[in-house]
Amino acid sequence: MNEHRLIARIEGALEQRGERIVRSVGEDAAVVRASGAAVTSIDTLVEGVHFKLSTHSAADVGHKALATALSDLAAMGAGAGEVYASLAVPGELAEERVLELVAGMEELAKRTGATIAGGDVVSAPTLMISVAVTGWASDPQALAYRDGGRPGDLLGVTGELGGAGAGLILLEGLDAALPRAEREALETAVPEGERARLLARHRRPEPRLEAGRALAAAGVTAMIDLSDGLATDAGHLAGRSGVSARVRLAELPIAPAVAAVASAAGREPAELAASAGDDYELLVAVAPDRAEAASAAAEGAGTRLTWLGELSGGEEGRVELTGRDGLPVELSGYAHR
Amino acid sequence: MNEHRLIARIEGALEQRGERIVRSVGEDAAVVRASGAAVTSIDTLVEGVHFKLSTHSAADVGHKALATALSDLAAMGAGAGEVYASLAVPGELAEERVLELVAGMEELAKRTGATIAGGDVVSAPTLMISVAVTGWASDPQALAYRDGGRPGDLLGVTGELGGAGAGLILLEGLDAALPRAEREALETAVPEGERARLLARHRRPEPRLEAGRALAAAGVTAMIDLSDGLATDAGHLAGRSGVSARVRLAELPIAPAVAAVASAAGREPAELAASAGDDYELLVAVAPDRAEAASAAAEGAGTRLTWLGELSGGEEGRVELTGRDGLPVELSGYAHR
Repeated sequence: MNEHRLIARIEGALEQRGERIVRSVGEDAAVVRASGAAVTSIDTLVEGVHFKLSTHSAADVGHKALATALSDLAAMGAGAGEVYASLAVPGELAEERVLELVAGMEELAKRTGATIAGGDVVSAPTLMISVAVTGWASDPQALAYRDGGRPGDLLGVTGELGGAGAGLILLEGLDAALPRAEREALETAVPEGERARLLARHRRPEPRLEAGRALAAAGVTAMIDLSDGLATDAGHLAGRSGVSARVRLAELPIAPAVAAVASAAGREPAELAASAGDDYELLVAVAPDRAEAASAAAEGAGTRLTWLGELSGGEEGRVELTGRDGLPVELSGYAHR
Repeated sequence: MNEHRLIARIEGALEQRGERIVRSVGEDAAVVRASGAAVTSIDTLVEGVHFKLSTHSAADVGHKALATALSDLAAMGAGAGEVYASLAVPGELAEERVLELVAGMEELAKRTGATIAGGDVVSAPTLMISVAVTGWASDPQALAYRDGGRPGDLLGVTGELGGAGAGLILLEGLDAALPRAEREALETAVPEGERARLLARHRRPEPRLEAGRALAAAGVTAMIDLSDGLATDAGHLAGRSGVSARVRLAELPIAPAVAAVASAAGREPAELAASAGDDYELLVAVAPDRAEAASAAAEGAGTRLTWLGELSGGEEGRVELTGRDGLPVELSGYAHR
């Protein structure tokens, strides 16, 4: 790998946008005009751990690496700003694949108004992508945090759950290591169109930037993105807020076709939707008198809030999941990233 | 590896400092109050490529990962601000080693006034550390860039060169793969004290943050840090400035004991000092009438500038190295990171 040539080709594939940027590629560091609050997160995807090049295209990987980082900005209600991407690339990976990866990232950056303003390329035995993103808000007070939830707040979630988890099950079904009968059951579980949608949901998660901004502005008391799965992330929000949470599994907005895939894999749909990660929807805590405003904000941002539980006093960080009968349900397994 | 427990232990080892920070660990993203210009860079170190755990302690690795990123801020004249560290950790690496790595990073952060404000930990087959750093300046105009050099500018370098390269040669001498006679020649090339200093120079590079700020304020026309080596980085500065550069090898401020190590390894000391990377000194271009002010600025920051060449018209990005006799010298090999 010729790192200098590859970097030059990557730079040629990037478009600069936004008036904040003073200098970006070609310098030791990027320079942006700063004001208000800067919101920064870093995320890393590793081949064989978070994706496989056998089931994800290079462009999928670039998209996902940026999407997961942007989702952290969405969870605070910040707007997307600058992206800094460090690519650790095995020598045997063709330069064209690396450029496809960057193109996948650039496409999402463009669509969300972000600019890839810096990065580096190094050699490594395993493909790894670290993405740091900075977003901006007028003021720290304009943002939502994990720790503002209060007893009595309603819990709401954007969009639909379980799609990414079902997509992952289907992807693993592509894996030749699976017994033939199981593979066939998965392959025929859902029609082709649904199948493609679930796979895309896993491969190309969509950061809820617009909804995050709208919900923060609507005065949610706490917000978090669902990367580890609803059950786990609700625990993070509750723990940081010093409260406990109750989630009614029957209320989960389960994505279409998730039930069919879950059944084929011998899983309960609601449990899958509550435990599988990577949906990147937003979970919010909202004071009851702001619930209507929050719903309207989500709808204005092209999604909808589903109310599925509430916060209460009690053991900090504890999440009680209840079934259709109102009785507690234990999840068989939590998915952690 | 229990990522959640490890993250909690890492968070416990970090001290928050600086009034800019509103939220850091425990949130989806860190939030800082922003003004002026934000300067951001990302760097990645990979085990087996940039370091070996057989010759670097975990604390060395943490130090170096942060130092190389901070050096990019130094090269612009920005002050150190926030650090976002993503650790990709093999399952077999003990948690204690990871905490030592973080401690090495935290120690340098504390000394430079930076705050480790965020990060993540993921599993990976190879240890990799990605560090994004943000520094701050009052205004984009207060910073120095690579592209401001003009024909007639003098080239100066801070500190001493070749120490990191000689340290690397010594480190490789520790490697059992080297023939015994060569290993012994290296082991006896320099006294123990010098040896330790050269090894430290390689393992624990020092970002020239104070000098960078002082030199930017003194009106240097261009600045870059020496990560790839003087010959290569002078080419970057010259290329971005649209000029060529001349460097007089006889003027290089070669670190003590470098000559002895170079000889033992069959290398020319000045060539080693000009081609080896990782010294992380600063190379500046300065208009002749500002040279005195730049020298004084460097001295005020605890280092000194050595004048070793100049910029001129001619082929963009070309670097002419001249020997003691004033005739051009070809380097046998450039070191690239």
